[in-house]
Amino acid sequence: RNPEGGPMYGLIGSLKAQAGQREALLAILLENVDTMPGCHSYVVAEDPEDPDVIWVTEVWDSAGSHRASLALPGVRDAITRAKPLIAGFGQHTETRPIGGHGLTIPA
Amino acid sequence: RNPEGGPMYGLIGSLKAQAGQREALLAILLENVDTMPGCHSYVVAEDPEDPDVIWVTEVWDSAGSHRASLALPGVRDAITRAKPLIAGFGQHTETRPIGGHGLTIPA
Repeated sequence: RNPEGGPMYGLIGSLKAQAGQREALLAILLENVDTMPGCHSYVVAEDPEDPDVIWVTEVWDSAGSHRASLALPGVRDAITRAKPLIAGFGQHTETRPIGGHGLTIPA
Repeated sequence: RNPEGGPMYGLIGSLKAQAGQREALLAILLENVDTMPGCHSYVVAEDPEDPDVIWVTEVWDSAGSHRASLALPGVRDAITRAKPLIAGFGQHTETRPIGGHGLTIPA
């Protein structure tokens, strides 16, 4: 939830690293995970079958917080460095999280 | 990570509720989220486009912990009550989480 009581915003996505670049890309994706306002959960994972694929699952207190995160200096810098390591994007599913465990929702 | 230092285990899945039963199914899915040993993250979400679809994204300290959770009395009971409300299963993707925000990893 967010102050206005609106719905949370979730994202499930996959991306494919350039061959041999997954580890470097994972490191970049993990740089900002603890610094983004409104981010309740941000999980970066490897695909166990495909050595180039990364899965990212996110939960935000609102779509607005997610959008705003893309303008954060640290995030913009990471995106710039990540781009050349990305061969392509796969799944991009938006969800409406209702609840769960591990959502760092401020009291 | 888990005591043996093995990889974390992640799941991204979707399921379709019987027409009109999503809310009841969501409630059942949310019952045990805070009681499952080794569960670092468990997010239950609605699909904003399809009124019957639910997305579940999970992170466990190991595949073993996830497997063991299916035998917990509370979880077994929830599964029994959930089954008649489920019309079908969609995505079932296993991942290897590397890190992120909101993973309740014990210090």
